[in-house]
Amino acid sequence: MKFTATITIALKPGMLDPEARAIQQALGSIGHPTESLSTARLFRLTIEAKDREEALQQATASCERLLANPVIHTYVVEVA
Amino acid sequence: MKFTATITIALKPGMLDPEARAIQQALGSIGHPTESLSTARLFRLTIEAKDREEALQQATASCERLLANPVIHTYVVEVA
Repeated sequence: MKFTATITIALKPGMLDPEARAIQQALGSIGHPTESLSTARLFRLTIEAKDREEALQQATASCERLLANPVIHTYVVEVA
Repeated sequence: MKFTATITIALKPGMLDPEARAIQQALGSIGHPTESLSTARLFRLTIEAKDREEALQQATASCERLLANPVIHTYVVEVA
């Protein structure tokens, strides 16, 4: 069976995010002030698995082994 | 009032995504094959606005003027 896993990876709270700060300043300078701004990466994987549980395990393993750095990132894995 | 806008920006379908191909190959080489893999950027903005409608307009304008390139990107703006 085919499953679609969505993985959202963001920096842990408190981690410095210079990219977000730069974007926030740029938006402010063109007249779009924001109180806060954070960024995240989104990965959508199509996985072949026998059931939803196995697809979730595969997606989580892919995330932990390659996509995210557990030291600085938090991640959420959802399987539709 | 404060609103949280979530902006998801992805490449348009059919656009070449070398980063996604590289990640897909790397996952395959460590034993996590995927049928397809796509990436997207996620931005969470906290905006001061008088109502939800105005927050949506501000977030959309920020997206169109700075965050996304309408030629190669599709984007979704949601306001909670």
